[in-house]
Amino acid sequence: MSTFAKLDRLVNPRRIAIIGASPRDTSQGRRLLDNVVQHSAFDGEVVLVNPAYEAIGERRCWPSVASIPAGEIDVALVIVNASLVLDTLRQCAAREIPFAIVMTSGFAEAGDDGKALEAEIRALCQTTSLRVYGPNCPGFVNVRDRLGMTFSPAFKDDLNAGSIGVATQGGGLGRNILQGLSFGDGVGLWFSAGNEVDLDVPDFIAHMAHDPAIRVISVLMEGVKDGRRLADALSLARDHGKPVVVLKIGRSELGIRAAQSHTASIAGSAAVNSAAFRQFGAIEVDDLDELVAVSRMLAAPSPKPDSGLCIVTFSGGTAALAADIVGAHGLPLAELSSATREALAQRLPAFASIANPVDTTADILRNGELMRDCLRAICSDPRVDTVLFPIPMDYAGITADMAKTLIDAAAENAGAMIVPVWMSRRMGEGFAQLENGGMFPYLSLTSAIRALKKTGRVRPAPAQQAPAHDAAPVPSQHSKPLSEVEAKQMLLEHGIAVPSGRLARSPEEAAAHARQIGLPVVMKVVSQQILHKTEAGGVRLGLSSEAEVREAYAGISADVTDRRPDANIDGILVEKMLPAGGREMLIGVHRDEAFGPVLTVGLGGIFVEVMKDVAHRVIPITPRDAHDMLREIRYFQLLEGVRGQPPADIAALEALLVKVSDFAHQHRDELLELDLNPVWVGTQGQGAIPLDALVVQRA
Amino acid sequence: MSTFAKLDRLVNPRRIAIIGASPRDTSQGRRLLDNVVQHSAFDGEVVLVNPAYEAIGERRCWPSVASIPAGEIDVALVIVNASLVLDTLRQCAAREIPFAIVMTSGFAEAGDDGKALEAEIRALCQTTSLRVYGPNCPGFVNVRDRLGMTFSPAFKDDLNAGSIGVATQGGGLGRNILQGLSFGDGVGLWFSAGNEVDLDVPDFIAHMAHDPAIRVISVLMEGVKDGRRLADALSLARDHGKPVVVLKIGRSELGIRAAQSHTASIAGSAAVNSAAFRQFGAIEVDDLDELVAVSRMLAAPSPKPDSGLCIVTFSGGTAALAADIVGAHGLPLAELSSATREALAQRLPAFASIANPVDTTADILRNGELMRDCLRAICSDPRVDTVLFPIPMDYAGITADMAKTLIDAAAENAGAMIVPVWMSRRMGEGFAQLENGGMFPYLSLTSAIRALKKTGRVRPAPAQQAPAHDAAPVPSQHSKPLSEVEAKQMLLEHGIAVPSGRLARSPEEAAAHARQIGLPVVMKVVSQQILHKTEAGGVRLGLSSEAEVREAYAGISADVTDRRPDANIDGILVEKMLPAGGREMLIGVHRDEAFGPVLTVGLGGIFVEVMKDVAHRVIPITPRDAHDMLREIRYFQLLEGVRGQPPADIAALEALLVKVSDFAHQHRDELLELDLNPVWVGTQGQGAIPLDALVVQRA
Repeated sequence: MSTFAKLDRLVNPRRIAIIGASPRDTSQGRRLLDNVVQHSAFDGEVVLVNPAYEAIGERRCWPSVASIPAGEIDVALVIVNASLVLDTLRQCAAREIPFAIVMTSGFAEAGDDGKALEAEIRALCQTTSLRVYGPNCPGFVNVRDRLGMTFSPAFKDDLNAGSIGVATQGGGLGRNILQGLSFGDGVGLWFSAGNEVDLDVPDFIAHMAHDPAIRVISVLMEGVKDGRRLADALSLARDHGKPVVVLKIGRSELGIRAAQSHTASIAGSAAVNSAAFRQFGAIEVDDLDELVAVSRMLAAPSPKPDSGLCIVTFSGGTAALAADIVGAHGLPLAELSSATREALAQRLPAFASIANPVDTTADILRNGELMRDCLRAICSDPRVDTVLFPIPMDYAGITADMAKTLIDAAAENAGAMIVPVWMSRRMGEGFAQLENGGMFPYLSLTSAIRALKKTGRVRPAPAQQAPAHDAAPVPSQHSKPLSEVEAKQMLLEHGIAVPSGRLARSPEEAAAHARQIGLPVVMKVVSQQILHKTEAGGVRLGLSSEAEVREAYAGISADVTDRRPDANIDGILVEKMLPAGGREMLIGVHRDEAFGPVLTVGLGGIFVEVMKDVAHRVIPITPRDAHDMLREIRYFQLLEGVRGQPPADIAALEALLVKVSDFAHQHRDELLELDLNPVWVGTQGQGAIPLDALVVQRA
Repeated sequence: MSTFAKLDRLVNPRRIAIIGASPRDTSQGRRLLDNVVQHSAFDGEVVLVNPAYEAIGERRCWPSVASIPAGEIDVALVIVNASLVLDTLRQCAAREIPFAIVMTSGFAEAGDDGKALEAEIRALCQTTSLRVYGPNCPGFVNVRDRLGMTFSPAFKDDLNAGSIGVATQGGGLGRNILQGLSFGDGVGLWFSAGNEVDLDVPDFIAHMAHDPAIRVISVLMEGVKDGRRLADALSLARDHGKPVVVLKIGRSELGIRAAQSHTASIAGSAAVNSAAFRQFGAIEVDDLDELVAVSRMLAAPSPKPDSGLCIVTFSGGTAALAADIVGAHGLPLAELSSATREALAQRLPAFASIANPVDTTADILRNGELMRDCLRAICSDPRVDTVLFPIPMDYAGITADMAKTLIDAAAENAGAMIVPVWMSRRMGEGFAQLENGGMFPYLSLTSAIRALKKTGRVRPAPAQQAPAHDAAPVPSQHSKPLSEVEAKQMLLEHGIAVPSGRLARSPEEAAAHARQIGLPVVMKVVSQQILHKTEAGGVRLGLSSEAEVREAYAGISADVTDRRPDANIDGILVEKMLPAGGREMLIGVHRDEAFGPVLTVGLGGIFVEVMKDVAHRVIPITPRDAHDMLREIRYFQLLEGVRGQPPADIAALEALLVKVSDFAHQHRDELLELDLNPVWVGTQGQGAIPLDALVVQRA
């Protein structure tokens, strides 16, 4: 386990020295001084150092750190010119000051001279008891105790203290996080240590893991200097039950390059970073607004952790859209208890929807009491711990009143968290009300639902086993499957090549067919009752002599009779066997409720069964559609050839798709289903040929 | 091709009848009347019908449609009780009124009686020249010509006309779209035909495809009634060069169910819907805010369509984050011309970044002139047609000034579209300025970048061929690969089972080894110079007699000498061959810059080479990590068994992962790389055994 700095005297100092304090209006030294003495609630002692002044205001100013009178100093705030920083830090070390925050820029981010300076600072930290925070940083902000050891003019607005701890490298984006947490549960501590010459993000995570007033740790990183220390700090937070949310820049080449030019930090591999976050229990997010949203949601743990999500809104379309996006994220909706449904049914009009999603109808727009009653019933349902409340439009005073009702309901109903979504771009009074009321209105359904998922507040529904694509259709009085021979004959008449083949009714006839067609051949049972020929023992491949063909005839007859005594055998199909090494595809046609006949193409075998790697087009298709739909297949490159394999005959496959589409279009009135599976696709010039065909027609 | 209604007299009527007009303050008939006569700029004639009144205000009120005096009526607005609708429509048909907008609710959405009523209305439309819009809808809004044939009290705020045409089914979410387009290029026409008893969304799309003042068509659908008509309307829009943006509810079971209970419409298959949108050229989006954002972006076509994207911001971290998200979406950044870079270098401080992403530094915060100059230089770069300008925080007056500068720059620089991103949750004055100025500030980097991608404004970078995972490391002076025999010996000493094997140096020795090990065996050349044994002709599998073994020894020796005359052959490894039917995995260890040794596991063959289907963990791992990382593999189910295959020995594979992790951790100082590829995994109880092993150590 790595060791982490003990930061208590940095976080809650009693005596602070400001090195580079200045009375000049526009200087950083002045802004820093003002933040510490005017905008902070710091009641310890502040000592100023600047050789240019004897005093600033009523405070004495010392010419150097060495000249400060005796007495322990906890933190030196250093804002002198870069060339003076090293000497200043040496004096701090000599005075046994435990912490220095160096805000000055012009170090590693500025080039090789700066890197050399940083190496000397690092060496100083290793040989003395001084620990350095920075350089090239905005400083440290203890929002909770109202102490801003920062030159940022925005500090005076950092008033909203809370339980979220923030650790960043660069300062600019950290400011975004603080603004995002301006209301409700806000920020406790904000560490932003710039170039991390000594103290680093893992130190801050470890400190906050131990801090009882921090509930969630929010981290923004441009680079990982030491993965092992980061992993250990994340483990520590996990052990202390503190969720960590991380946004790590560097998941694309563009980001890695931009971050390196900005911070000179190590990017590492994005895949390894993400894996490490998962391994050590951190939640990774994709954008800054998501970092804020997920951190905020985690700060309010659920009192009913095994219950679920309810959508409540006053517009039917909004209810449907919200439910759709919840489902598209793989999340479930809770089933409301009958007591809740009864309570809603009593209060809401008949055309309201009292199932989940709940559509209260617009009746609640002007009836706050009704809205309150509905929310009370839903929040107290033991199956509901989260209420998603989308507001699709701004109705000025009406939505402002609604915001007030929501804030009251949230205060009154501790049983469930209410998550409002302000969907309109009109940021009306209602939005400001919700924000000021600490409700954290999300700005889109997707962002709220992603946060519910990322935080684990709503857990994914168990995956449902999709029916296998090639499940044979159940013959019914409305549909009639053709035999393979009939189906292939239909295709052939439409100009779609199939393997040469003839139906045999005896071993001798089979051998004669094989001789005529040319060896090797395959043989397949033909029976109205048998859709799965292989399972019925009705298929033999690679028969390369007439003796084998005769033997196969007998074998198939025996096996099928044995396994499917119910089936009438029409005969056994003897077909030319195509060369080995072809790729297997499937081509299918089914009827869509809305669009009618639809063409499907996919890679065969596990690709369609396990990976569902298929593309669709409404029939009829153009050659351009055939081209495009093949390239929508996720693993299309398998057709182009991988591992030195030659490319498949893609042109023939595209032509076949168009022919199948034309065929289905021509027979659109009677065709219910067509399955060509597998379709054999040879290498360039060899063609694309359906090996099996199932046609189901209207009876 | 389907036929579509000609809607000109509906869209621009000269004479309107309001059936159900009312003077009662809270009635819908009153709100409709007010919208048409007070809030619209309609200068045609308005005729009122209501048997309860003789007059409303100064307007005469007729008892029935039949009683209206002679003269052509273009549109009847019907807001009478549901039970009176059918009779009213019959009168309209008799009067040869071409269009009726029925706003009344209580039809198909209310149950079977309503469905029967709709069937009668549909029959009426089929047998007369009357076309019906509705029922159960808020009406039709012609924003462009300021005519609101709607009872919505929000119509009076629908003032922002523009080139975007909107078609929805439900009304509530349409209101969100109109609010989202409140500034800048707004809405031309908004059709919202509720239950679509006759006129439907395809009619509206087709009308707008022909309307020269509509540039973009924005569609929100809960169900598709007739896919063929929709496809034909989309084709028409494509042929007229009008992009169509579609949000279709019903991509999850939850959404389908909610939409059906709300509109009683057909959901269809989500995959087929999406495929049809692609096929007929529509852009599908995932959420309502995206529908608005993408529609808005499409309304401003690029004057330089073959140029690219430039990021400009004043914070280094923001520049890096924005570039990262651009890259993560597979989009490229433009390379600025040298003239642009020179212009920026002259004006910006030395520590600015003048490459793309451009980091101007905070100098532009208080220097509008500098910001203007930079934007001018970038917008006039022939390689740039889009400028993404993220504003990470609200600095009150400072960001408000910045907004003004952006608005001016957008007006001045027609050469590129400026896309501002308001990243802060503080919706300060600057946000309002941008919004009022018609700049459409996006609310997150991701939403802006997704819109750039969805619109095709920025086209994906060509995919880069990732290096194959199993590319052998180049031996260098710092690294030393062990032979397969040495590597397997190391594994064996660590308790990792490998196939029994011995090195042979003659055909006779090979046969003796094979006898001792037990047939069948595999044989592999061992040579320091040969990392790819198969390619060198150095592998033989499935040797099942001593004669075959002897022959294989000679064959390998000859082939390798032939293909790799440079290689010294140390001997040929004779190994026990494992049963057929095992699954192939790979397990690897490499050193990550930040985290040190990292373990990788994946499905072998094409799964790792083509699909990159692997999972990582920082070493050392726990049994829990081994369990979790296997389940992070996308196609983990192949190990559980698909298509009736028995499950693989997952427990043995997990145990092997932990052992390999321990092995690598123990050798962490000298181990540079470990590749076990393939690892054979049998069925339950058969174990998991590396068949090949490559170990590279520090030299």
